[in-house]
Amino acid sequence: MLPEHARTHNRALVLQTLYTEGAQSRADVARETGLTRVTVSDLVAALIAEGLVVELGQREDARPGKPATLIDVDREAFHIIGVDLSEHEVFRGAVVDLDGQILDRDEIARDGATGEAAVVLVERLVAKLLDRTTTPVLGIGIGSPGVVDPHGVVRSAPNLGWSDIALQERIATRFALPVHVANDANVGVLAEHGSSHHDDLLLIKIGHGVGAGLIIGGRPVIGGGFAAGEIGHVVVGTDGGPRCACGKDGCLEAWLAVPRLTAQLDELDELDERDEHHDGAASARDDILREAGRRLGIVLAPVVGALNLSEVVLSGPAELLDGPLHEATVDTLRTRTMAEHNRDLRLRMTEQAQDIVLRGAAVMVLSGQLGVS
Amino acid sequence: MLPEHARTHNRALVLQTLYTEGAQSRADVARETGLTRVTVSDLVAALIAEGLVVELGQREDARPGKPATLIDVDREAFHIIGVDLSEHEVFRGAVVDLDGQILDRDEIARDGATGEAAVVLVERLVAKLLDRTTTPVLGIGIGSPGVVDPHGVVRSAPNLGWSDIALQERIATRFALPVHVANDANVGVLAEHGSSHHDDLLLIKIGHGVGAGLIIGGRPVIGGGFAAGEIGHVVVGTDGGPRCACGKDGCLEAWLAVPRLTAQLDELDELDERDEHHDGAASARDDILREAGRRLGIVLAPVVGALNLSEVVLSGPAELLDGPLHEATVDTLRTRTMAEHNRDLRLRMTEQAQDIVLRGAAVMVLSGQLGVS
Repeated sequence: MLPEHARTHNRALVLQTLYTEGAQSRADVARETGLTRVTVSDLVAALIAEGLVVELGQREDARPGKPATLIDVDREAFHIIGVDLSEHEVFRGAVVDLDGQILDRDEIARDGATGEAAVVLVERLVAKLLDRTTTPVLGIGIGSPGVVDPHGVVRSAPNLGWSDIALQERIATRFALPVHVANDANVGVLAEHGSSHHDDLLLIKIGHGVGAGLIIGGRPVIGGGFAAGEIGHVVVGTDGGPRCACGKDGCLEAWLAVPRLTAQLDELDELDERDEHHDGAASARDDILREAGRRLGIVLAPVVGALNLSEVVLSGPAELLDGPLHEATVDTLRTRTMAEHNRDLRLRMTEQAQDIVLRGAAVMVLSGQLGVS
Repeated sequence: MLPEHARTHNRALVLQTLYTEGAQSRADVARETGLTRVTVSDLVAALIAEGLVVELGQREDARPGKPATLIDVDREAFHIIGVDLSEHEVFRGAVVDLDGQILDRDEIARDGATGEAAVVLVERLVAKLLDRTTTPVLGIGIGSPGVVDPHGVVRSAPNLGWSDIALQERIATRFALPVHVANDANVGVLAEHGSSHHDDLLLIKIGHGVGAGLIIGGRPVIGGGFAAGEIGHVVVGTDGGPRCACGKDGCLEAWLAVPRLTAQLDELDELDERDEHHDGAASARDDILREAGRRLGIVLAPVVGALNLSEVVLSGPAELLDGPLHEATVDTLRTRTMAEHNRDLRLRMTEQAQDIVLRGAAVMVLSGQLGVS
């Protein structure tokens, strides 16, 4: 390990220890990290100079000798801006503190904007969010639909009409702040990972499209072409299915995207209204959701089997996902894989609700700027 | 990073540099690794004492000053024992040198042995292999079918009648040597990774059963229940399929395992012999192989999509896999995923032929004992 790499690594280690364990003395940090007291004191001095770490006063304890000075990450020193471009109608943003709490929100209607007009909307939203905080900003995190490369270039986001848009560089230049851009589901899974006990985790994000975010061995998976998680256009089963916008029949998105599910349920409601003797609308509704869940299970079974995943998380409208759809996905996964290997598999709804991308964007900035997760 | 961790890391860095770059001076190693000359000299002295590194004499060059002494990994200092338990009829083993070359081989017929009798056969094979080398042995690597935990306990290998067999501990105690045991396909993918340019790699191993080995971001994936790659009993498609030994219909193994394919082809040959006017046997043969390949593609499409894999490798009998089966898998993968994301996907036959598990077992020992890959 190169000396400068060792220093960066040790700095992140000190920050991570303070971040997760809270206020403690320099000696505590040395014990916890295995670094020498001299190294810790040196790193802490630099972190105090940067304003990231603060002295809290002396510990009141009964230990003999000079009482130790407590230090902690200054959780109020910086804010983070999180932006979620994954919704069809609106770009949403938030001011997030270093503990991941959302302090303030704003949004901007997309009104069908694409291409350059959509980039301008992102800039306007970021400007509005920056106006809402007087605290220094650690960085800006953005979750975008589509394929995003490690330099934050949106290689392709058809919904927004984006192709090779260097969003990260553009926002960084405009606001002179560190910016991190990644795919929305890949960002979302970072938020979910924080509240999970597992180092292998799959997030399925169901909205206007269907995408996945994946963490394996504690590390995000981005894929050879930066398109990991792009499962919306994988064909489900061998019995056809609805025609998809991409031209294929029976893509996962054609079964499962929110507009598609909503349209099917609306059709059912209309049928119900026209014919007051029309029975079993509730069970017909359940059938539609159950079939969508079954289709999700069919696509996930090989992924769960190949990775031997312990945890799969669903994100999207709870009124659609959390019920027959969820149950059918679990049932299908169990009957289509080797049960004894996947006994511990847990499929659950996200705990982040609609804020999953905003919170994940903040985690991405914390980890990118401080090495803290 | 703890000081002793740093030392282990730096030692592996020095070994890795010598291992891949070949003979060079201590100063070259320092430049290459970014470590100080003092650190390198200190580590090299310890490695020479261990017999892992050797001085080769002085460089004949025109540079001014005292000519530098060349050092290298002593590639003849140690041998590795590799063992492959994945075949149905026979346990195979090899003596492998530090460069991964197979120097000698041996095997032992299984004769249907299971349980304790099968463990005794493994011991006997290892003893025979150790007899074939007078060079010190760095360690023993074993690829076993079934689910193997990180301590080398075979949790479950139905073919061998093994359940919670502490094979690693047992062989290590018997021979007083370091032993590493892992799943055969997970071992195999290590060998394949050596000859690949990709850090994401999926190996599909087709034999008596069907299993997969997976490397993501350069690291082996083992799964929450240590059963990553166990895709043999994932159900393919939604149109039924042959009854599998596990009781389900249409498992990947029921379509693709070698005994199943061979039986189908034999049936065709019999038909052909009985009726000399029976036409199109060759095209019927192709149809069987093509359908098997299509089924493999159906199961792999969601995995390739979710991971955005660049490379999938097939291992097994080339006369079955390398032709219509391979072609149909590629075609199916392309038509069932988003083509533009998986444009660079390459599906190829292994370059290790039948030795993939033996070579992978040697890589596992190299990496486990020396930190070298």
